[in-house]
Amino acid sequence: MKIALLGGTGDIAEGLVLRWSKAGHEIFIGSRSDEKAKKIASEYIETLSKLGITPNIHGMPNADAARSAEVVVISIPPEYAASTVRQIRDSFTNQIVITPVVSMVKKGNYFMYTPPPQGSCALEIKEALPEGVKLVSAYHNLPAKELSKIDKELDYDVVICGDDEEAKAVVKKLTEDMPKLRALDAGPLEVSMMVEAITPLIINLNLRYKPRHFSVKFV
Amino acid sequence: MKIALLGGTGDIAEGLVLRWSKAGHEIFIGSRSDEKAKKIASEYIETLSKLGITPNIHGMPNADAARSAEVVVISIPPEYAASTVRQIRDSFTNQIVITPVVSMVKKGNYFMYTPPPQGSCALEIKEALPEGVKLVSAYHNLPAKELSKIDKELDYDVVICGDDEEAKAVVKKLTEDMPKLRALDAGPLEVSMMVEAITPLIINLNLRYKPRHFSVKFV
Repeated sequence: MKIALLGGTGDIAEGLVLRWSKAGHEIFIGSRSDEKAKKIASEYIETLSKLGITPNIHGMPNADAARSAEVVVISIPPEYAASTVRQIRDSFTNQIVITPVVSMVKKGNYFMYTPPPQGSCALEIKEALPEGVKLVSAYHNLPAKELSKIDKELDYDVVICGDDEEAKAVVKKLTEDMPKLRALDAGPLEVSMMVEAITPLIINLNLRYKPRHFSVKFV
Repeated sequence: MKIALLGGTGDIAEGLVLRWSKAGHEIFIGSRSDEKAKKIASEYIETLSKLGITPNIHGMPNADAARSAEVVVISIPPEYAASTVRQIRDSFTNQIVITPVVSMVKKGNYFMYTPPPQGSCALEIKEALPEGVKLVSAYHNLPAKELSKIDKELDYDVVICGDDEEAKAVVKKLTEDMPKLRALDAGPLEVSMMVEAITPLIINLNLRYKPRHFSVKFV
């Protein structure tokens, strides 16, 4: 598939780009700056080439990346996510958009989940997108470091939610392109707050149980 | 230890009573009605006797049960939990109180977490208790049915939070009296909303993936 990663640099973006490239998908790295996007794309290409993989990765401004793809991942820090989507709103028509966005604040030595007034980051992003877009909330709790180890099997669950069953089926398939992730469907987009809240919880556990990098599994 | 279970009938109370009795703890079943509490206590005694265990279980009104114990579990439905605690507030001095309380609403075919204005059920109950009480939030996500199978090993995680380190150590020990539960400390009581929110999420997964009874594990 043609997959865009907006702000495709930090956190989970690296692991997603590497693993989806390995699975044969075409990747569009978006950034605010065309130059930066192209630089990052060439770095990913170099990393993958060394592993014997010839990837299909392009760098371009966020708006062009979103327009080029069938699936768009909002891998943008929470404080810029909704505003970036609003700025490039015209690039969206009927894509599947994946939001892993979670907003939180640090209070002393722990993090608190701080949902926006809409009730969750997913619902805030939904408001910023045109109507035909199929939004799926997913990938909040993947440990970025483990994800970027391209050959490591990930025995974790990815909880997804959204209002479009076909879009969720696509995200489930993309998830399971990354061995051994399992996608679990938790229902409509409205339940996203319950999924997003797990992220600061896991960060707090990671801080207490260093050097663990926890993810979650439903057993 | 002397452990009270207020409203010690439904949901996870049964499993906790059976398993903690097996581990040798003394149990005080509390109920609004003395008669009902005594009836339930005798049923638990009968169940355990059949398994060759001679338990130490007493039934009494909630206020007396709370007063008799070192550890008090608020196993009361969310809509009555804080008000019941307020009514018997004078029975609390310096006990460890465990809240597994989670408030939620059903919307169509799924559940939404609905925290009270304090931010979480734990913080609402804290407000209802006198100052010396050490409140620990725990046991939200134990599958009641599995818990009540007294000999079944439970390979789940119990996420606990609270502001008193010694109280959390006691709850950790009580948790690990139930083989193979693992207690994970997620920090201060304030993070309880992030733990409570997992419960309706799990219920939604259970509804979608029948006949599974999910619990959670951090891996």
